[in-house]
Amino acid sequence: MKLRNRFYERKQQEIQEYLCSEELNALLLFEPANIAYCTGFFHLQTERPLAAVIPQEGNPLLLIPLLEVDHVPEHVEVETYFDYPGKINRIEWIKSHLKTRSLTRIAVENSISLSSYEIFSDMSVNRTDIISVMRQVKEPEEITLISKAAEYADYAVERAVHHTKEGVTEFEINEKTRVDVSQRMLEDLEEIVPVQGGLCGGLVCSGENGALPHAMPSARKVKKGESIILSFGATVGGYSAESERTAFLGSPSEKQKDAFEAMAEAQRTGGNALCEGAKCCDVNEACLNVIREKGYEKYLRHRMGHGIGLQGHEPPWIEEGDETVLKSGMTVSNEPGIYLPGFGGFRHSDTVLVTPKGATSLTLYPKELDSLRI
Amino acid sequence: MKLRNRFYERKQQEIQEYLCSEELNALLLFEPANIAYCTGFFHLQTERPLAAVIPQEGNPLLLIPLLEVDHVPEHVEVETYFDYPGKINRIEWIKSHLKTRSLTRIAVENSISLSSYEIFSDMSVNRTDIISVMRQVKEPEEITLISKAAEYADYAVERAVHHTKEGVTEFEINEKTRVDVSQRMLEDLEEIVPVQGGLCGGLVCSGENGALPHAMPSARKVKKGESIILSFGATVGGYSAESERTAFLGSPSEKQKDAFEAMAEAQRTGGNALCEGAKCCDVNEACLNVIREKGYEKYLRHRMGHGIGLQGHEPPWIEEGDETVLKSGMTVSNEPGIYLPGFGGFRHSDTVLVTPKGATSLTLYPKELDSLRI
Repeated sequence: MKLRNRFYERKQQEIQEYLCSEELNALLLFEPANIAYCTGFFHLQTERPLAAVIPQEGNPLLLIPLLEVDHVPEHVEVETYFDYPGKINRIEWIKSHLKTRSLTRIAVENSISLSSYEIFSDMSVNRTDIISVMRQVKEPEEITLISKAAEYADYAVERAVHHTKEGVTEFEINEKTRVDVSQRMLEDLEEIVPVQGGLCGGLVCSGENGALPHAMPSARKVKKGESIILSFGATVGGYSAESERTAFLGSPSEKQKDAFEAMAEAQRTGGNALCEGAKCCDVNEACLNVIREKGYEKYLRHRMGHGIGLQGHEPPWIEEGDETVLKSGMTVSNEPGIYLPGFGGFRHSDTVLVTPKGATSLTLYPKELDSLRI
Repeated sequence: MKLRNRFYERKQQEIQEYLCSEELNALLLFEPANIAYCTGFFHLQTERPLAAVIPQEGNPLLLIPLLEVDHVPEHVEVETYFDYPGKINRIEWIKSHLKTRSLTRIAVENSISLSSYEIFSDMSVNRTDIISVMRQVKEPEEITLISKAAEYADYAVERAVHHTKEGVTEFEINEKTRVDVSQRMLEDLEEIVPVQGGLCGGLVCSGENGALPHAMPSARKVKKGESIILSFGATVGGYSAESERTAFLGSPSEKQKDAFEAMAEAQRTGGNALCEGAKCCDVNEACLNVIREKGYEKYLRHRMGHGIGLQGHEPPWIEEGDETVLKSGMTVSNEPGIYLPGFGGFRHSDTVLVTPKGATSLTLYPKELDSLRI
């Protein structure tokens, strides 16, 4: 599964209208996810610079290393260089192709590096976040891919629950799950695009390891009585979704139940607040306030969530510093967490679609405590 | 396994001498590998900005999101922010901590983004690649880690050969190998640092898939008579090594043998040229010339190799545009390739240490054709 040409044609047309109104000749893109969004060209980023050019008229142009030439979609023009660093600076090389085509009034991404920007300093250069803004509201075809990714992320949690047994290591649970899900994806999906981290990735953290929000899967063996965070993501046609559940091996203690229920209520509150017209910062506040009011404020380690799409984490941010007004078609994670050092972590994550009627969770794995006793 | 405090103390001293001679107050680092190199702080990069500061005097300072606080090494000071993006721009927040400490004459990396650079524009800012240059020549402790990583990369090729059977998919070979090697690493190594991509990663490409230098492992089943590239990397204490072999399921044809032998001779020639005092571009030329002279020029897709260490790919580049003079202690990959479209790919890769007496391969898996018939 992947997006069709007509999606990219529509995006190119939107960009061309913007270029026309700004009297610019071209948009120059370096960010891999922005390039994929505008052209359908997916690649794994290395040290080799590459760029996409959307000219005000005509087809997009990719300026890439020879190594990547096999992934170039139809209807996209391409120029290649042999390898990096080359006798000619590769950003100069990219610029030379703009000059050849008389594309001298250009827009670039706000994330451009200083050294690249300096190379274009004798051209007329505007900075823009137009692609980042466009990407925040997903089109129906993108939502289809994210929904499919959400199904696989749920399937990953299902397999992880299956593999979780006393004495099995976090690493084994994670790897067996990844392989089960990736196998199924390879069988089901005809078209695979290259994505950093593979088709399915996860993190399994049990007991006190769960209190480290970014712990790595380890040789730690899962023990009876522990909480365990089963956190998985999957990517379909370049689009990601995540599903995470906090489960228990055996019966949870009162302390575990209390933290779990505080997190679960925060997640429900966050989900209810996620509606068209609400501000991201306010949704975050409503969600985290539940945790604060229940006395767990000092065990907060992160915001409620983040946008999700071509990148696993992307704008908008469901955090106090983001005043973005939510729109239908935005897809975000809803994942408040409580982390009790030396004891355990408590976090669910759902991938949620904002609709005119509120939020719809695309991940559907059961999340009540009774469903999560293993 | 990981580096000890005395390594980081030495590096900090070298940097402080540089700062002193340049009359600068501090070095500000954003690149994850540079931060790890100077402080021992390893993390997986997300959208959350973080920085390390090496002041002209005193201990290093990490300015990081709260989420990363559990990985901070001893003897490193730390300030945290709650999450991203925050009400205060996080680069402004980093700057405020420099100002509080009166660190107003600073050096930054050449890779800094334009938007970050602008925030520091009212301070005195030098640009430097000092850390990149320091990192190119590995210290004995670093070589120990890379050598250990090379052992695991070789072990990965051994396991991949074991798992390669007719009818097994590329994906299965890759995953079974990854799990075997990562399991052993988790058992052997007491200390694990977080690394992008995990402890062991690979790429398995058979038949015509092998002709795509950056193909992804797929559901393609390995067939008798095909060439198959078994390409693996492992990371110990944050340091990587790679080992890759082109193997054959059954007896290779004359066409396969001819391409294999041309690649193998290019690799030997490249290995012999990799000695202290030689220029990277000349080594690359000697190596690729073998392939050109044997009539495979149009099937070249990339340079001979790249530096390897804290990053899988890092300077120096064994490529025509890099005039770096090789020094003892540099570690590089030696991996010329020949790619025959629709037919197969032929590439070995070794991780090689430059010594005063020439090059020593740290990867030792047999590479003669007779050893690579499965």
